[in-house]
Amino acid sequence: MNPTAAIIIIGNEILSGRTLDLNVRNVAQKLPLLGIKLLECRIILDDKDQIISAVNSLRKKYNYIFTTGGIGPTHDDITTKAIADAFNLPLLINDEAYLLIKNFYKSKNIELNAAREKMAYLPKDSILIYNPISGAPGFYIENVFVLAGVPYIMEAMLEQLLPKLKTGNIIKSKSLDVMTRESYIAEDFAKLQSKYPHIEMGSYPFKIDHKHGTSLVLSSSDENSLNFAYLELQQLFKEFV
Amino acid sequence: MNPTAAIIIIGNEILSGRTLDLNVRNVAQKLPLLGIKLLECRIILDDKDQIISAVNSLRKKYNYIFTTGGIGPTHDDITTKAIADAFNLPLLINDEAYLLIKNFYKSKNIELNAAREKMAYLPKDSILIYNPISGAPGFYIENVFVLAGVPYIMEAMLEQLLPKLKTGNIIKSKSLDVMTRESYIAEDFAKLQSKYPHIEMGSYPFKIDHKHGTSLVLSSSDENSLNFAYLELQQLFKEFV
Repeated sequence: MNPTAAIIIIGNEILSGRTLDLNVRNVAQKLPLLGIKLLECRIILDDKDQIISAVNSLRKKYNYIFTTGGIGPTHDDITTKAIADAFNLPLLINDEAYLLIKNFYKSKNIELNAAREKMAYLPKDSILIYNPISGAPGFYIENVFVLAGVPYIMEAMLEQLLPKLKTGNIIKSKSLDVMTRESYIAEDFAKLQSKYPHIEMGSYPFKIDHKHGTSLVLSSSDENSLNFAYLELQQLFKEFV
Repeated sequence: MNPTAAIIIIGNEILSGRTLDLNVRNVAQKLPLLGIKLLECRIILDDKDQIISAVNSLRKKYNYIFTTGGIGPTHDDITTKAIADAFNLPLLINDEAYLLIKNFYKSKNIELNAAREKMAYLPKDSILIYNPISGAPGFYIENVFVLAGVPYIMEAMLEQLLPKLKTGNIIKSKSLDVMTRESYIAEDFAKLQSKYPHIEMGSYPFKIDHKHGTSLVLSSSDENSLNFAYLELQQLFKEFV
């Protein structure tokens, strides 16, 4: 069985349209390589009730929950406190986090003010996720992994984290682009899907140089079946390739 | 009071990391201009149960629900059927949709096959959302607006739709970029937030030419207060601008 996952993107800037979210795709591209199935994502505001409700409804449903955003030094960064509340844990100064933050700023000749110290207060018994970019660590409690929102910092934290996760069979994808409208090949493609019900088959229209094309994508963690189905797909639509 | 909204992005291709979602930002940027507050987004698979559960839990909570994706001609396009199920309505051929689709393909000298006809089957009593790009319309039932997934088609449908929505006071944003770390100005920024509790204030770090900067964003549908707060913000951090 493949472990399952969900992402919670926390940030007013995504829902205001100010910022294009890149974290869903970044996480989504990494998980299949570990055989982890990403089944859902929620994008919510920097809002305590929304965070608690999303975390508590998803953490029971999926093996892994990744949150991004809201763990910085400013007043609108409320994720850490909300996660503590979701688990009914107190926020306490984490000695290891404090040291990491102190040393990070010391190395830059910057004094440790209250806003910087705030990032060392974590839910009791959190385990740190190291942050090689900006010092202040992420953390996790049980199956909830709390990451930064800035994409390159999120990615650096994720790199630390992925080797610790329980993996499944790698989920592979193969894609064939055919130069025709998807409504033209829909019927035959549906028949192929019926023949291989355990292979996920998706159809994605595109346009290039004013011509209609369709990307046909097959995914499975059973590489043998995937290869068979893909050969058949190529045969089926060879006139359009 | 501002009407509220949520988006449901439907598509395996987003959660597999194959496709970067652009629809959340597109919708999110348009709603504040109508005074509609976007409070949540869910990204789910092309999965009947997930669609039904997301639609039915969100449509009671918010004034408007926008879904994108899964209304095309292929077997993996199951949104229309799932929406019908969510409302306990039968799927019936919609005469107006059928005519639109028939005429669209006729104008291109393409015959109407079963896959194309499938897009004319809509939940009973749906109201159409016209699609000036690729013929097959979107539709809505009560407060649930069902749009295409391809971004430029989704946008064209949205344009048809927005003038029909109940609006609120326009939500305006003003942004100031300061060239310092957010942890440096966090304390003063929090004080400003306390002085103007009804103005949403967000802090977003960035890096440019290896220098740290912070975008400070103020949003409100009360333009007067927003202007006052913004003037104060400019005064407060004038040394960093």
